Amino acid sequence: MDSSVVIAVDAMGGDFAPDVVLQGITQALEADAQLSIIVCGLKDVVVPFCAHHTRLQAECCSEVITMAEHPALAVRKKKDSSLVRACRLVKEGKAQGVYSAGSTGACLTAAIMHMGRIKGIMRPALCVTLPTKKNPVLLCDVGANADCKPAYLEQFAHMAQAYCRATLTLPHPRVALLNIGEEREKGSQFAQDVHALLEEHIEGFQGNIEGRDLLSGDVDVVVCDGFTGNVALKTLEGTASFLMEEMRETFLSSLTTKLAAFLVKDQFRAMKARLNPDTYGGAPLLGVEGVCMIGHGSSSKDAICNGILMCAQATRGKLVESIRHSIGAE
Amino acid sequence: MDSSVVIAVDAMGGDFAPDVVLQGITQALEADAQLSIIVCGLKDVVVPFCAHHTRLQAECCSEVITMAEHPALAVRKKKDSSLVRACRLVKEGKAQGVYSAGSTGACLTAAIMHMGRIKGIMRPALCVTLPTKKNPVLLCDVGANADCKPAYLEQFAHMAQAYCRATLTLPHPRVALLNIGEEREKGSQFAQDVHALLEEHIEGFQGNIEGRDLLSGDVDVVVCDGFTGNVALKTLEGTASFLMEEMRETFLSSLTTKLAAFLVKDQFRAMKARLNPDTYGGAPLLGVEGVCMIGHGSSSKDAICNGILMCAQATRGKLVESIRHSIGAE
Repeated sequence: MDSSVVIAVDAMGGDFAPDVVLQGITQALEADAQLSIIVCGLKDVVVPFCAHHTRLQAECCSEVITMAEHPALAVRKKKDSSLVRACRLVKEGKAQGVYSAGSTGACLTAAIMHMGRIKGIMRPALCVTLPTKKNPVLLCDVGANADCKPAYLEQFAHMAQAYCRATLTLPHPRVALLNIGEEREKGSQFAQDVHALLEEHIEGFQGNIEGRDLLSGDVDVVVCDGFTGNVALKTLEGTASFLMEEMRETFLSSLTTKLAAFLVKDQFRAMKARLNPDTYGGAPLLGVEGVCMIGHGSSSKDAICNGILMCAQATRGKLVESIRHSIGAE
Repeated sequence: MDSSVVIAVDAMGGDFAPDVVLQGITQALEADAQLSIIVCGLKDVVVPFCAHHTRLQAECCSEVITMAEHPALAVRKKKDSSLVRACRLVKEGKAQGVYSAGSTGACLTAAIMHMGRIKGIMRPALCVTLPTKKNPVLLCDVGANADCKPAYLEQFAHMAQAYCRATLTLPHPRVALLNIGEEREKGSQFAQDVHALLEEHIEGFQGNIEGRDLLSGDVDVVVCDGFTGNVALKTLEGTASFLMEEMRETFLSSLTTKLAAFLVKDQFRAMKARLNPDTYGGAPLLGVEGVCMIGHGSSSKDAICNGILMCAQATRGKLVESIRHSIGAE
């Protein structure tokens, strides 16, 4: 079986681009011998870098989209940016997937505009993979669609299940609806309508889940509209960093506590690594024609490497075909 | 100035009722010499208890609403329950406020049905007070209204500001809208409509706030619809307990880490106490004719004491008059 994959990487996206991106690329090539990468960026950056490796190819562009720009306007204006070029490579069949740690809004816009939606998909959705006590859980949508119709969420469930099958190799992903009570009659009218749809159409639907059980690991996929998902994700991140900061200050408060910090530092580092979402390499955008993975702006080289490897894995797992199949659009 | 206050307390509400509730009552009486309490509950419980103190009065009832019952049905059926009787005491002018640690749904229903809405208030709202680095922040609504119209949120902002003024003695509370981006054009259509209303009508409106900044302490009030607020609150609670559990396991993982745990135990206990929402005594229900404070089912005696004292404080701070004034319904 030929498992060679070509991924287009936006070398200019992210807070620490291009250096950290290039390091992540090097690491990914070492980890996956069947992976080739087309590196999109300014000529001075990508040409010398790609000269070092046979599985690298440079794609030169003249523009860069920064974090500060208005996402949709920048994508529309900068047709020769590294991000747009990377997405176009997938459209043109030269790469099967794209990875960028650039502005999430710009990545969303560029992928939808230049890779295009899968036929039959109403709205592409952005997911994140969250660590839990057990298996990770995929939260979908986390912000691509602030205003949703119930039918979108049915498709989010299908797409997220397809992603689980393609990358986490779960044959029967369990799905729940993020809601404010466990019983079917709980929640907003919208949530109740979605509940009815999921119950009818989604195999493996487990009912509602509340915010407090998001990290329980009892389900594999949690679907919600992009407004709710974004609030939940950011509240989760905010609470975690608030508590980590409180803990850090507690450990620094006296000589005795500093000694204690020294004694547990390895274990705490291991705990933080275990809970680090970077393990999962970023946020997949599901529903576009090709694999698309969006990294945090602050992605480390490990996160970037993992994101690229995840693109390759989703490609090999036939993500796009699987989504097409799941919505009956073959 | 006469600052005597009468609060009705549901002695039968909560996971550890009536014992912990009675302990909380005793503690509150000690803390506030101008406070009198009408204790509502089964005769065997309240009559002997109230015999001990001149500022206690027993209100005997024949029924109890349990946590397991359907809230609205139970309230409708059990007219002689401790919870309904406590709310009726406010309606009849015998008490100015009510406190219960019973089922939140039942408390909401009982208060709205038996105390009644303040004239002009479209929907009463449930709030929680969250600890931050700086001042606490009031999140409103956290679940009383899953489906909202933009105008409700304008009233939530007015009511929450009135609560801040009455209890936290902040003359100029700063208000933000929970949204998924900072700019005014961000978020769902609903969020954008609310933003426009708050900008026009709420003095001290600071714009949008994202989930990650909920605990920043940069604003005093965060408003949202009850669906979003409930998801945010429960995600916050779930994340905090997930991390606390991970930390506990890390501390228990070896002899060395157990030693470290021993060294920091006082400081960690102090940190947990500082972040404990019990400090604020529960969730005020705003917009009903009287002060109403709902405690967690698992409330400790300290939490119950704080909740009762907060009822007294809100009464003295003229919460209901202040809400009436803020919506121009005097």
